[in-house]
Amino acid sequence: MADVVKLYGLEGSPFVCRVKIALNLKGIEYEFVVEDLSNKSADLIKYNYVYKKVPVLVHNGNPVSESLVIVEYADDAWKGVPILPQDAYGKAQARFWAKFVDDKCIPTVFKAIGSHGQEQAVAEAHEQLQFLENELKDNKFFGGDNINLVDISATFIAFWLGAAEEALGIKVLTKDKFPKLIKWSDNYVNCQVVKDSLPPREILVAFFKKRFGGN
Amino acid sequence: MADVVKLYGLEGSPFVCRVKIALNLKGIEYEFVVEDLSNKSADLIKYNYVYKKVPVLVHNGNPVSESLVIVEYADDAWKGVPILPQDAYGKAQARFWAKFVDDKCIPTVFKAIGSHGQEQAVAEAHEQLQFLENELKDNKFFGGDNINLVDISATFIAFWLGAAEEALGIKVLTKDKFPKLIKWSDNYVNCQVVKDSLPPREILVAFFKKRFGGN
Repeated sequence: MADVVKLYGLEGSPFVCRVKIALNLKGIEYEFVVEDLSNKSADLIKYNYVYKKVPVLVHNGNPVSESLVIVEYADDAWKGVPILPQDAYGKAQARFWAKFVDDKCIPTVFKAIGSHGQEQAVAEAHEQLQFLENELKDNKFFGGDNINLVDISATFIAFWLGAAEEALGIKVLTKDKFPKLIKWSDNYVNCQVVKDSLPPREILVAFFKKRFGGN
Repeated sequence: MADVVKLYGLEGSPFVCRVKIALNLKGIEYEFVVEDLSNKSADLIKYNYVYKKVPVLVHNGNPVSESLVIVEYADDAWKGVPILPQDAYGKAQARFWAKFVDDKCIPTVFKAIGSHGQEQAVAEAHEQLQFLENELKDNKFFGGDNINLVDISATFIAFWLGAAEEALGIKVLTKDKFPKLIKWSDNYVNCQVVKDSLPPREILVAFFKKRFGGN
């Protein structure tokens, strides 16, 4: 039986984009079902009855929710390019850093954006981003020569953040403080599987202008 | 070379206890290094330089932090009793629910405790606990006949919560609303590997009395 794969999502969501990248990496064809969050579908409410949020991946009728859980599921369910390291220690490190991106980086960066670049909020984001900057070491990607779970988790930093900076006329990821993350962002968004998964940048710029008020 | 395994922790921490249970399940011998959080060791600060928190597992010199990451690491690194299901979908479901326990159940239950059982806070905890209650279905454990990642993640609900209820003279996990979780708690804390890992209940009762003020 051929796999039936559906992804319930929204074009502009960085969390949905993580799943698109994982599916593209694995070479999996899927149907993208666009959700209207002001009028959620019965499917979404049934499949993710706990959070009623996107993304939800439905594979042969079996739903999986939470973006990092879905990315790991894709790695476990399908062969092809690995998303996590193969050794136990490498897996643990990747999970640690992906969780760090969710727990610390994205919330502080989002707060820095929402504050229009207020000094204290930016300093808090910088404190967390510095850990990521250091973790890159001299690698092209967090995964070394190839992207892995950590790169995918940080898609917001690589692409969404720049759109927010443009929309609001602020700078959070500065070249002097974060030269490695800047270079990584550039390499990452230019990977074909990533590029093919990203929404048009102007949609995000418009979103951030509307949400936080632009210049 | 024989494995050298050290666990940096605190006796009363439910997060450290998760790791103890995982190591006991795998039959791994380890040295338990007690940390004084008011005077953290140089090792702790070096090994977990991001959070400087326990638990930290150090396996042959390689540190792993974040309790659920460590539990998955133990499952990947050592054979023996499996902690996660073997199939991709089962793994994803276990990860989803363990994350739900961390993101939703523990915070709301802790708030209900901290509020001394204030009605609104208890209602919010109940809303989340109801999902766990339903997820148990007719199984002995979240893992079915044996404990798995989800059971381990919910150690706080199984043991710490009861101590808090006793300390403060409140009831959050009520028999009428949560008969399955009550039965599960009882089964779980009586598993030998769990029982051997738990701190003395009176330490926790004393902690909650001191922290939140008892009757």
